[in-house]
Amino acid sequence: MSASFRYAVNVAPKAGILDPQGRAVEHSLPHLGVSGVSAIRVGRRIELTVEAADVAAARAVVERLAGELLSNPLIEVYHVEPLGAASSLVAEAPR
Amino acid sequence: MSASFRYAVNVAPKAGILDPQGRAVEHSLPHLGVSGVSAIRVGRRIELTVEAADVAAARAVVERLAGELLSNPLIEVYHVEPLGAASSLVAEAPR
Repeated sequence: MSASFRYAVNVAPKAGILDPQGRAVEHSLPHLGVSGVSAIRVGRRIELTVEAADVAAARAVVERLAGELLSNPLIEVYHVEPLGAASSLVAEAPR
Repeated sequence: MSASFRYAVNVAPKAGILDPQGRAVEHSLPHLGVSGVSAIRVGRRIELTVEAADVAAARAVVERLAGELLSNPLIEVYHVEPLGAASSLVAEAPR
């Protein structure tokens, strides 16, 4: 017996690491007439479904992928977020 | 008087829209000896701080940025997520 678990892996540039995409967004704010927005960091969000015997086994797979494939630990931090069906941005991938 | 509010904007390719980065991740799984992972979608996550008079005003700014600058509504969906200080991946940007 196995079950499906859906997760998001949120990846962001470490504090102190240059974030050129964040700078680009900040520089475009005046053109939109927006002020009062700061500390912009642009990262990635990967959603995926894991088939595993239980939640602990599923979580172990996701943690391994997050550290070895989905992020670069030298310059990025990641956080694994368990998703209910309602939290997923993409309807095609139910928990 | 104004206060600081921190948000994340999660952006994902719409269901049915090609996601080449997600495909690339899927294709690399066998090389890592990982199986049972599916429905991978790769999107972006933007964290930002808004100075505003109240939470409603801050939220309005974030929603506008999300729809006009941070996502392409033709091919992407976004979700605005209010962050407590603990939820932010980046320590330099407290709520």
